[in-house]
Amino acid sequence: MTHKHRATWAAVFIAAAIGCGSPGPEQEMEVRRNWAIAIHGGAGHFGEEDLTAEQQAAYTASLSAALAAGEEVLQQGGNSVEAVETVIRIMEDDSLFNAGRGAVFTAEGIQELDASIADGFTRNCGAVTGIRGYRHPISVARSVMDSSEHVFFSGHGAGAFAAAMGHEPALDEWFFTEKAHKRYLRAKRRAAKSDALADKKGTVGCVALDSQGNLAAGTSTGGMTYKKHGRIGDSPIIGAGTWADNRTCAVSATGWGEYFIRTGVAQDIHGRMLHGDESLVEACRNAIFDEMGELGGDGGVVALDASGTIALVCNSAGMFRAWSSPDGRGVSMFGTTLEGTVEVQ
Amino acid sequence: MTHKHRATWAAVFIAAAIGCGSPGPEQEMEVRRNWAIAIHGGAGHFGEEDLTAEQQAAYTASLSAALAAGEEVLQQGGNSVEAVETVIRIMEDDSLFNAGRGAVFTAEGIQELDASIADGFTRNCGAVTGIRGYRHPISVARSVMDSSEHVFFSGHGAGAFAAAMGHEPALDEWFFTEKAHKRYLRAKRRAAKSDALADKKGTVGCVALDSQGNLAAGTSTGGMTYKKHGRIGDSPIIGAGTWADNRTCAVSATGWGEYFIRTGVAQDIHGRMLHGDESLVEACRNAIFDEMGELGGDGGVVALDASGTIALVCNSAGMFRAWSSPDGRGVSMFGTTLEGTVEVQ
Repeated sequence: MTHKHRATWAAVFIAAAIGCGSPGPEQEMEVRRNWAIAIHGGAGHFGEEDLTAEQQAAYTASLSAALAAGEEVLQQGGNSVEAVETVIRIMEDDSLFNAGRGAVFTAEGIQELDASIADGFTRNCGAVTGIRGYRHPISVARSVMDSSEHVFFSGHGAGAFAAAMGHEPALDEWFFTEKAHKRYLRAKRRAAKSDALADKKGTVGCVALDSQGNLAAGTSTGGMTYKKHGRIGDSPIIGAGTWADNRTCAVSATGWGEYFIRTGVAQDIHGRMLHGDESLVEACRNAIFDEMGELGGDGGVVALDASGTIALVCNSAGMFRAWSSPDGRGVSMFGTTLEGTVEVQ
Repeated sequence: MTHKHRATWAAVFIAAAIGCGSPGPEQEMEVRRNWAIAIHGGAGHFGEEDLTAEQQAAYTASLSAALAAGEEVLQQGGNSVEAVETVIRIMEDDSLFNAGRGAVFTAEGIQELDASIADGFTRNCGAVTGIRGYRHPISVARSVMDSSEHVFFSGHGAGAFAAAMGHEPALDEWFFTEKAHKRYLRAKRRAAKSDALADKKGTVGCVALDSQGNLAAGTSTGGMTYKKHGRIGDSPIIGAGTWADNRTCAVSATGWGEYFIRTGVAQDIHGRMLHGDESLVEACRNAIFDEMGELGGDGGVVALDASGTIALVCNSAGMFRAWSSPDGRGVSMFGTTLEGTVEVQ
């Protein structure tokens, strides 16, 4: 049995650590599994009271639909990179999230998108930052991984690469949403009074383990509302926002990007597992609470290990998240409730 | 005695691991020290036979002069961030190196510069990629660290930030050198025949430990000759090309950037030390040979730990490097000779 196939049908532990806001409860149980997937739609300081029942239903439906597309890829024996790209393309088209269509505006009133993807088997990766005019930044990132001698492109260079690879263009009108534009106008008014940073919610991400035992991770975002032109957050940075290595984990992060860069959150989780023998859940909690959180940042990660453990960990009040494996699926948004662990069973 | 001052006058071990090309010899000795500095001017597959005596003398003089400026800052009690910026500004002005003046050309025949800096005490950082028209990218990176709510800017956004901060502009003519332009023309001819990547030599970097026990690291580059427009290498990426954390190490990398991003070399060294209890030298060697090198990349790092250990490790045939502490100084370029360990005594 090769390393590549080690996770197939292995008896493993699942731990769904969905406690947010403070180190929350965890639950472990022994199961058989051959694939797993987890997604996020951003983290932030929101609670049940901040979203109407209608909004909650909309997020649940969107998360569930994106998750279902990933489940289908994995159930049919598709690979984890394919699952990650498929899910994120759907979320990029969904204006509920801050990625692709619906992305927030920069201080200059434009949309500059970031995305990255990583393959835990080959340990290859691809990323773009500040790309404009292409509908699916995650697919451009995948092309960078698959078809370029480079791994990371910015701005016009990223656009030129996307054009050369024949990626689907999209006009500014495609990306424009009233919601994101209102956020921009609000941030602009606030900026006139102070330097306070605007809201940072809505990045999307996905981690997947396929039936071959291969991990993959991807992240896509419009960044922060009212970010300065050219600002790069953690989402396109391998090691900060995205990481995949079959030996340890797949991670996609969301939150205050500057803090995720400073502490290299995604790679920190990997390093804790590989060199410190921490479990996935321990590593996620320590990276989020003890490292990134200690510096003053907030946000969270969705992560998987090679045996199918799922960890959904944030130190913010909420994180839009969903997860699935042959043993069950769940969608969750708020705080420290147990609904996630109940549903994942 | 605070953590901040722990390295001052402590009895520590130095290990200068300068073996390149294969895991080379190391040497350790107990000394007292209160500051240390190491710099590089790029790594590559060159040996003594590839450089004339005149060229070797020129590199030695340039490395020694840059080192001396850093030594002066540290000897006078200046901080490690100041030392790193001072050294790299000098190397950016020195057309011998591929950073600032003398930077290589992209496939489009322009110069797009990258730089990053990290402070091990605050664990803050700043970086720019694809910046044009500013003489000292490292100083723009430092301004990002000190004066921006963001940590990483690309392209025009990086330029706009530099302008707003009043950084010294420089015309294309300033950056132009015959040497870099010839490399470009040669790469262009080669590219017409194949996709082979052009040479990757000449990135500059510096790590410093000051008498307060604080570590810092910085890296600056023009990237690869004939790189595609918008390509981001490891130099501006915190975790890949640059890292500093007083708990572990300061690292500046040089080499084939794509491989350094894929394996997060600088943060890998940190993670091995923090979570795996590896020494600085072990961590550098494992990160370079077992991780990055295993994937097929080449290059090296200069690194320090908080007690003043100096490690200069590469898996390429050569790396322009120099190092200093109150116990001695040295300059070295080639292979697996012992001159470094002899001189550092």
